[in-house]
Amino acid sequence: MSVILLTPDELTNSSETRLSLEDLFRKEFVLHDPETRWINDTDVVYKSENGHVIKLNIETNTTTLLLENTTFVTFKASRHSVSPDLKCVLLAYDVKQIFHYSYTASYVIYNIHTREVWELNPPEVEDSILQYAAWGVQGQQLIYIFENNIYYQPDIKSSSLRLTSSGKEGIIFNGIADWLYEEELLHSHIAHWWSPDGERLAFLMINDSLVPNMVIPRFTGALYPKGKKYPYPKAGQVNPTIKLYVVNLYGPTHTLELMPPDNFKSREYYITMVKWVSNTKTVVRWLNRPQNISILTVCETTTGACSRKYELTSDTWLSKQNEEPVFSRDGSKFFMTVPVKQGGRGEYNHIAMFLIQSKSEQITVRHLTSGNWEVIKILAYDETTQKIYFLSTESSPRGRQLYSASTEGLLNRQCISCNFMKEQCTYFDASFSPMNKHFLLLCKGPGVPVVSLHDTDNPAKYFILESNSMLKEAILKKKRVKSEIKTLHIDDYELPLQLSFPKDFTDRNQYALLLIMDEEPGGQLVTDKFHFDWDSVLVGTGNVITARFDGRGSGFQGLKILQEIHRRLGSVEIKDQIAAVKFLLKQPYIDSRRLSIFGKGYGGYIASMILKSDENLFKCGSVIAPIIDLKLYASAFSERYLGMPSKEESTYQASSVLHNIHGLKEENILIIHGTADTKVHFQHSAELIKHLIKAGVNYTMQVYPDEGHDVSEKSKYHLYSTILRFFSDCLKEEIPILPQEPEEDE
Amino acid sequence: MSVILLTPDELTNSSETRLSLEDLFRKEFVLHDPETRWINDTDVVYKSENGHVIKLNIETNTTTLLLENTTFVTFKASRHSVSPDLKCVLLAYDVKQIFHYSYTASYVIYNIHTREVWELNPPEVEDSILQYAAWGVQGQQLIYIFENNIYYQPDIKSSSLRLTSSGKEGIIFNGIADWLYEEELLHSHIAHWWSPDGERLAFLMINDSLVPNMVIPRFTGALYPKGKKYPYPKAGQVNPTIKLYVVNLYGPTHTLELMPPDNFKSREYYITMVKWVSNTKTVVRWLNRPQNISILTVCETTTGACSRKYELTSDTWLSKQNEEPVFSRDGSKFFMTVPVKQGGRGEYNHIAMFLIQSKSEQITVRHLTSGNWEVIKILAYDETTQKIYFLSTESSPRGRQLYSASTEGLLNRQCISCNFMKEQCTYFDASFSPMNKHFLLLCKGPGVPVVSLHDTDNPAKYFILESNSMLKEAILKKKRVKSEIKTLHIDDYELPLQLSFPKDFTDRNQYALLLIMDEEPGGQLVTDKFHFDWDSVLVGTGNVITARFDGRGSGFQGLKILQEIHRRLGSVEIKDQIAAVKFLLKQPYIDSRRLSIFGKGYGGYIASMILKSDENLFKCGSVIAPIIDLKLYASAFSERYLGMPSKEESTYQASSVLHNIHGLKEENILIIHGTADTKVHFQHSAELIKHLIKAGVNYTMQVYPDEGHDVSEKSKYHLYSTILRFFSDCLKEEIPILPQEPEEDE
Repeated sequence: MSVILLTPDELTNSSETRLSLEDLFRKEFVLHDPETRWINDTDVVYKSENGHVIKLNIETNTTTLLLENTTFVTFKASRHSVSPDLKCVLLAYDVKQIFHYSYTASYVIYNIHTREVWELNPPEVEDSILQYAAWGVQGQQLIYIFENNIYYQPDIKSSSLRLTSSGKEGIIFNGIADWLYEEELLHSHIAHWWSPDGERLAFLMINDSLVPNMVIPRFTGALYPKGKKYPYPKAGQVNPTIKLYVVNLYGPTHTLELMPPDNFKSREYYITMVKWVSNTKTVVRWLNRPQNISILTVCETTTGACSRKYELTSDTWLSKQNEEPVFSRDGSKFFMTVPVKQGGRGEYNHIAMFLIQSKSEQITVRHLTSGNWEVIKILAYDETTQKIYFLSTESSPRGRQLYSASTEGLLNRQCISCNFMKEQCTYFDASFSPMNKHFLLLCKGPGVPVVSLHDTDNPAKYFILESNSMLKEAILKKKRVKSEIKTLHIDDYELPLQLSFPKDFTDRNQYALLLIMDEEPGGQLVTDKFHFDWDSVLVGTGNVITARFDGRGSGFQGLKILQEIHRRLGSVEIKDQIAAVKFLLKQPYIDSRRLSIFGKGYGGYIASMILKSDENLFKCGSVIAPIIDLKLYASAFSERYLGMPSKEESTYQASSVLHNIHGLKEENILIIHGTADTKVHFQHSAELIKHLIKAGVNYTMQVYPDEGHDVSEKSKYHLYSTILRFFSDCLKEEIPILPQEPEEDE
Repeated sequence: MSVILLTPDELTNSSETRLSLEDLFRKEFVLHDPETRWINDTDVVYKSENGHVIKLNIETNTTTLLLENTTFVTFKASRHSVSPDLKCVLLAYDVKQIFHYSYTASYVIYNIHTREVWELNPPEVEDSILQYAAWGVQGQQLIYIFENNIYYQPDIKSSSLRLTSSGKEGIIFNGIADWLYEEELLHSHIAHWWSPDGERLAFLMINDSLVPNMVIPRFTGALYPKGKKYPYPKAGQVNPTIKLYVVNLYGPTHTLELMPPDNFKSREYYITMVKWVSNTKTVVRWLNRPQNISILTVCETTTGACSRKYELTSDTWLSKQNEEPVFSRDGSKFFMTVPVKQGGRGEYNHIAMFLIQSKSEQITVRHLTSGNWEVIKILAYDETTQKIYFLSTESSPRGRQLYSASTEGLLNRQCISCNFMKEQCTYFDASFSPMNKHFLLLCKGPGVPVVSLHDTDNPAKYFILESNSMLKEAILKKKRVKSEIKTLHIDDYELPLQLSFPKDFTDRNQYALLLIMDEEPGGQLVTDKFHFDWDSVLVGTGNVITARFDGRGSGFQGLKILQEIHRRLGSVEIKDQIAAVKFLLKQPYIDSRRLSIFGKGYGGYIASMILKSDENLFKCGSVIAPIIDLKLYASAFSERYLGMPSKEESTYQASSVLHNIHGLKEENILIIHGTADTKVHFQHSAELIKHLIKAGVNYTMQVYPDEGHDVSEKSKYHLYSTILRFFSDCLKEEIPILPQEPEEDE
């Protein structure tokens, strides 16, 4: 076995230097997101690299400065939004994160032209802290949420109208999500939707009065710090109930409930999607609590009547429940992805066109795409050309390309982005202008991200809004990581394994390995997305190879792979990851004595389960905010995969890290958790540690007091350096103290 | 510099083996405490090594088995007490620790002869959990506390009488202490006292209604763990108010308040001692909140009138406030220690005899002892011989010997224990029988502890009750630690520094150093007490020397040394400890590159302050449950040393570890804290960590979820192995990778 010491930079004949942890925090290494938004078919508003808010007219290529960067400083504002009439800006200050998406803030309205300023406060309240505030869709309409009630202001100078009165902190939520809806169902804190004309507002009323409360302790910042409690239904516990209302804002306000489908009326259900399809109609998706029956209805908001358009059931669970169908202007047809069987390979998500017979309300379905690949997102339907625009994995499961397809005739499909910056860009997102005249193309990798504006009729005619040239240049000066994808065959599946090698890699050397887990089931680790994080620093040391493997349970490669984890969460994923490691152990360049693993959240769960397994492959592992027991985690998540917990069944018990914890005995583990994590409670790590102490297992712990699931910016450097130090220590080569003669084969 | 590898046991020519951590947990290494109690002048009750409860008559030397060890198993009982008439036993089961001394439990009464069993429950309550239960002083009198109210039962078969009704959980405490009184004032959870005839009961009513509550979070053991709140006055916050009552139990009960001295009526004060001196009189000590004025009163419990007997004031603070004066039977004189000036060396605690003129109630004081040593505890006054018995440091400040002194004439003083097992015993405690005919002598070191029973008239006539022979034998098989005491001169003081060396110590080698801090100010680390703990294991490795230094602020060496920390807490102690280290650095056998420090509670505070200092002497340090900021700690503690916090003054700020925390930058720190610590809240470590993260300082953390200031028995092994691993890693010799030629002087 050869023992090779790290090569100091000085000895390599290159001017490139190693990426350091400090580099990640330098401003030249920060990716700039211009937060580009369409204002109309020819104008976008974006934030320039130096912080000005700018309007750009694509056709004339003229820019208008809407807001100087100094204005943010003046108001200590960290978020902004421009009014639909472009005359005013809403500026948020004292922003405090609540959960994943939600935050409280105070707001001022700033008139761009007159420089007048108004504070945004509910009637009779001063210095208010709001849960939400935003412009409507017309003129200077404003909406805000205070103490769980919705307030409406027709314009900046008029007085506010309270649209709901049932709101009660921690109990009844109007227009804003509770924790479960925000984190696990809507993936947004916004639970209200404007009609296109701004005359009506649909909103959810979420009732948590029977949901058990979780208490998040506080430790710092006061002599007697107070904890915070909020409703959080764990697996099998009482869920919030939900109602969907529409209030009309012009004339005397009145509120109407949109009723769930008949067979849901006596059951528990979620609402996972609401979208306006005309000024008076919404489309709503209702999902039963087991998440295997989903009903799409179109509701007439003037009467409250909802008619069922499509019902989907599953033997496992239904995914993509937030997807918004794209409707034609007259509402006679809509487009949506549905699972379509592709021979023995199981189902893949493909676009279906639903034609609604105007009289009978009967529906005809036509499938527009098919194949062993997935449609990721339907972006637009162009009425004139009758083309549908969408992102798909057709060219590669790891990429995302923009395609158009005809909805008529032979359904001709065309890749729009495939030739755009080919080397740098294979993973795209896109956003079409309101009338589809233009689109924004967001290249997200594998090179440095680029944002460009395109003409829909002539996509090759484009304009680059953001090229992140500073970052590109900074990275060029660093030794880059080399990446390689291998394919593993497990159970008839072809599964991708991505390896990241140090620049100076040679297969005559041996390297340590870090296997990185995904954060959520149904995700995808092996993609062409630009990636640049603490693990890049680790590979940059020249000593470590990182590996990412999308095994069963991962997404975007057909539903069969994804759904393999149904009722087997924490079992097949472990098998597959171990299979990947065993494959790697056959490679001559992997040092079998220096294997390590990392995961966060659900990834921390999988990593813990792997460390606990009998294989004893790993020298060490680190987990951040690991899920330890699915019974302690959110109902909508745990039940999706494991069903309702019951006393007889052992599904939950078997899937718990605490079950047979003795398997962890031999490992070197670093457990990291913020004590104020509202997603995966510190409870999880506490239970793990308690069991480890009982079992006499050593471990290292890093606690971030009063920090959440994602540590704050100010703690990020500390977190990264802790992880890097842990892996460097664990993965360093052990140098024999006494030089030994090389031995012959024994 | 010589590099010496550890010598493996095999190479030493001795059959002694190294002490291992596992050894500490073996039953042969456990010290047995027989919990011996006087029943009358000739009988003691104790628990034998195999768990039987036995009565021993000293004069006849006959033993009676009161309770078999199997009875404990039958009732799952872990605590017991025998009724005054020796007929029944009170057995506690489901014992759950609350604070330092207090615990809840359920109780059964077991008749030793009939084997009948009664559950102890308040009227109309089943399966009750009591805060306290105990026998009275006569027959089968019982007292118990439930929901902060006192209940009295004249005998085991009669029904209970509720003596108080004001009790309210977390607000009004009757007969039992709140957190502050238990931990910082009474050093006991018992806040009631029986008159000798059992006819009256004195008790405290502690009112916490205005005291802020601290919340202790819970993390494990439930889906939705609930935190626990309890009144805890931090420095400068509202304190509990206190009243002292006496209730008479025979005939119609009536309750009378004993009034505080006039000049305390409009002030905040504590009651720190209550003792019955006859069947109708109590002696009470009242202490003002700044703890510099103390008034001793004798109260007539039939009228409630208290008359002042002695007032003590101090420029700093008053110590020994729990001391119970010893009264003559007729109440005409009492004995108590008082500070007595010994020339330039300041004050030492010595015995004073207070003679009360029967008519005028005037008091004459006579000092019975003097010298540069301290009286630790007055044990008994023998009316016939007019001798006083007490413990003192006369023979050595590190020892405790039993002395007698005449209270008449030349005050002849005699050491009773000085010649008893001289080699093994220089540190004693003692307990006299009710009429002083016999005494128990508890030898606590330096050898293995021994309990013996002596005849007061002829102390050389004794009987050994417990010799801990198994432990003695077990220890003999291990390499013992060698101890040496050096004297350091600081500011005219002679201060003791104790070093513990490995058995194979030689001053031609170099050793790592661990400096151990005391847990409380006013304590004493360098004593002759038997000591056997994790640090013995560390010394046993042969690689490390431990040091303990009693600098300014330590106790039992005169009040001047103790009171040096007044208004300078966290300053002089640091200077002295650093001086001790600098002294050690001059010794050739100390390796200056391998210094470490350890402390818990207040000791963790001092250790942190030292690590923070500019000296950078230490390679690493470990702190358990460290006090980080005195503002966050208990009022009665912090105010004693630093006064009330005020905005203008910087005393508190300067004494905080968080002040100039950047000094900690270079250190390698292990922070250990139980999240349910009710004494030093986890808040302290959380604030420390938050500041360390901000300052970019590395540290290691060990969290014990839901454990208190002292970790539970089941976690102790984990705790010790964590500490030992940390120090072993930190203090191990760094072996150069490449062998080098020894260099000449440069």
